[in-house]
Amino acid sequence: MKLNASIAILACMGFATPTAALHQTQTSRSASQSTTKTLVERLGYPRDAKLLIVHADDLGAAHSINSASIKALEIGLVSSASIMMPCPWLPEIAAYARAHPEADFGLHLTLTSEWSLYRWGPVLGKERVPSLLDSSGYLYPLENEAAAHMDIKEVEAEIRAQIARARALGIQPTHLDSHMGTLYQSKALFETLVRVASENKLPFRLSQESFTRAPFVPPLLGPDDVVLDRIISIEPTVAPQDWSKFYTEEIKNLRPGVTCMIVHLAFADEEMKGVTFGHPNWGAEWRQRDFAFVTSDAFRKLLKENNVKLITWREVGKLVGKTER
Amino acid sequence: MKLNASIAILACMGFATPTAALHQTQTSRSASQSTTKTLVERLGYPRDAKLLIVHADDLGAAHSINSASIKALEIGLVSSASIMMPCPWLPEIAAYARAHPEADFGLHLTLTSEWSLYRWGPVLGKERVPSLLDSSGYLYPLENEAAAHMDIKEVEAEIRAQIARARALGIQPTHLDSHMGTLYQSKALFETLVRVASENKLPFRLSQESFTRAPFVPPLLGPDDVVLDRIISIEPTVAPQDWSKFYTEEIKNLRPGVTCMIVHLAFADEEMKGVTFGHPNWGAEWRQRDFAFVTSDAFRKLLKENNVKLITWREVGKLVGKTER
Repeated sequence: MKLNASIAILACMGFATPTAALHQTQTSRSASQSTTKTLVERLGYPRDAKLLIVHADDLGAAHSINSASIKALEIGLVSSASIMMPCPWLPEIAAYARAHPEADFGLHLTLTSEWSLYRWGPVLGKERVPSLLDSSGYLYPLENEAAAHMDIKEVEAEIRAQIARARALGIQPTHLDSHMGTLYQSKALFETLVRVASENKLPFRLSQESFTRAPFVPPLLGPDDVVLDRIISIEPTVAPQDWSKFYTEEIKNLRPGVTCMIVHLAFADEEMKGVTFGHPNWGAEWRQRDFAFVTSDAFRKLLKENNVKLITWREVGKLVGKTER
Repeated sequence: MKLNASIAILACMGFATPTAALHQTQTSRSASQSTTKTLVERLGYPRDAKLLIVHADDLGAAHSINSASIKALEIGLVSSASIMMPCPWLPEIAAYARAHPEADFGLHLTLTSEWSLYRWGPVLGKERVPSLLDSSGYLYPLENEAAAHMDIKEVEAEIRAQIARARALGIQPTHLDSHMGTLYQSKALFETLVRVASENKLPFRLSQESFTRAPFVPPLLGPDDVVLDRIISIEPTVAPQDWSKFYTEEIKNLRPGVTCMIVHLAFADEEMKGVTFGHPNWGAEWRQRDFAFVTSDAFRKLLKENNVKLITWREVGKLVGKTER
C-alpha cells in the first residue's frame, strides 16, 4: 500500500485510528462493554486479555516480500498474512500455502497497482473489467482514482474471481482485506466487500474505531460480521530511527481487546528498491525496518512482558455466522 | 528461455547451428555467394566484413535482467536487446526505451511463461485468448506445449497486441524475435511471424543455418525478408568454467557475414535466483556469467583484435522491403 491522502491512510489500514483518538473512543465504548460480551470473550478469553494479530500485508507482490514474510511467519511473531492474487509472485506464495495449510493466509483483495516500474493487471481478463484499468492497461495506481472509475459490478466480479482463483490454487483463505483500502473508499465498495465476505463466510479487516470516521460503515454490518477492536499501523510521520520506539509504545499501551498490527515486510534488496522506486513510504527500507522489528528478540520479550497473546484470523473467523453479541 | 528438448534449443535460438555443422553449411553456400550480393554488402560493408549484433534477450522479465542489460548496453559491447511485453517489469524498460530512443530495442514476442514461482499472462485478456493459457491461467510454461494448444488466430491477435502495446508505450521496435522460439515451432506459427513482421516492416531473427533444419522455412520467406548468416548462442553443454573460452573461440572463428550473438543478462541476486528457481540452465548464475563476459575488457579487446564490427538490428531493418538480393 502507499501514501496518498489522509482518507487513504485511514482506509488502507482498515480505518486505523491514531493513538490520541483511540482513548476518546475507548471511553465512550466502555459503558456498553459492561453489558455485552466483548470480542475477546466471544473468542473464549477473559475480558482483560490483550489479543494481537501481527499481520503481514502484500504477499505475492514481490519475491523479497514473500521471502521476508515467510521468514517472519516461521520465526513466529507474525501470526497472519494476506496474499495479492493478481501479482506475479503469486505462484511462489501459493506453493508455500499449499505446503503449509496451517499458516494463516487471507486475501489482500487487489484493485490497484501502485508502483511505477513494476505493475500488474486484474485476475479477470482486461476485456471483462475495463473500468478497473488505467490508460496503460494495468490496475489504477491509486485507490481514490480506482474508486472514482470502477464499475461496481466489475469490482464484484473481480474480487469474486480473486477468491475463486485462490481456492483453485489450493489457498484456503482465512480472511479478507483490501490492498490500499480501496474497498473502504465508498459505501458501494464497502457494501460489496461485506456481501462477498459474508457469502464466503470470511471475516474482513475492520475495527470499531472506524465507526466514527466512516458513518456509512455501521449500517452495512450485519449481526454476523466480526469487528476488531483496534488496528495499529505505522505511518510516514514516524521517523526511521523511531521505528522500534513506536511499536514498543504501542505494545506497552495495548489495551484489552483484539488488535491487528499491520506490517509490511521485505528486504531492502535490489528488487524491492526497484519495485518501490521513488517512494520511500512503504518502500524497501521501510519494509526492512518492519522486518527487523517483528523478527527481533526485543519484540518477543515485549509481547511476553506485556501479557500479549498472538492469535490468528482463523480463530476470529470461527465467529463468523455466530450472531452472539 | 529455457532448455526443453533439442528441437526447442534450436528453435529458441532462431535455429542456431552448432559450430561443426556451420562449416559444412558454409561450404555449400560459398558458390552462390560469389554471384549474389551478400547481406554484408547490402549493408554497405566490404564482402569480408565480420558484423556482429550482440543481443540481450528477455528484457522486462525481471528487474535484475533490466538492470544488467541496461548496464551492458551502456558499456557498449551489447548492441541490441528485445523486450517481453507481457512481463511485470515492462514499465521499467519502457521508460528506459522512451528516454533512450537511440537504443536498439526489439520485441521478444512472448507466448510462454516458463518459471515456476513467478509467472505472467498474455497482453490480451484471458477471455480473448483462452488457447494460450494453461490450467493455472498463465501462458504455457514450455514452447512445445504452447505450440500444441494454441489457436493460430489467437496467436496472431496476441502478437499484434504485443506490438501495438509497445508502440502505445513509446517503444519503437527495431526487430522481432520469439521467446523460447515458440513461433518457430511449426509452419503455421512461423508463417504468422513472417506475415506480422512483414506488415510491420520489421526484420525478425532468422539465420541461413536454419534452412536445412526446418524445411518449412525457405518457402515462407519473401524477397523482402532479411536473413542473418549465423547465430551464436551458448548452450548447457558448456561448463561454467568454459564460458569465456566458448565465446572467445566463437569470436576468433567468426567468418565474414552478419552474426547475432544471443546473450541472457542478469545478476545472480535473490530476485533472479527466485525467478529461475530449480533451473540452472539460463538461470541466475548463467546470466551473471553472460553479463561478466559481455561487459569485460577481454571481450572488447577480442572484438578489436579480430576486426569484428558491432552493428544493430536498426541497420539490418533498413533493408526490409528492399528486394535487392
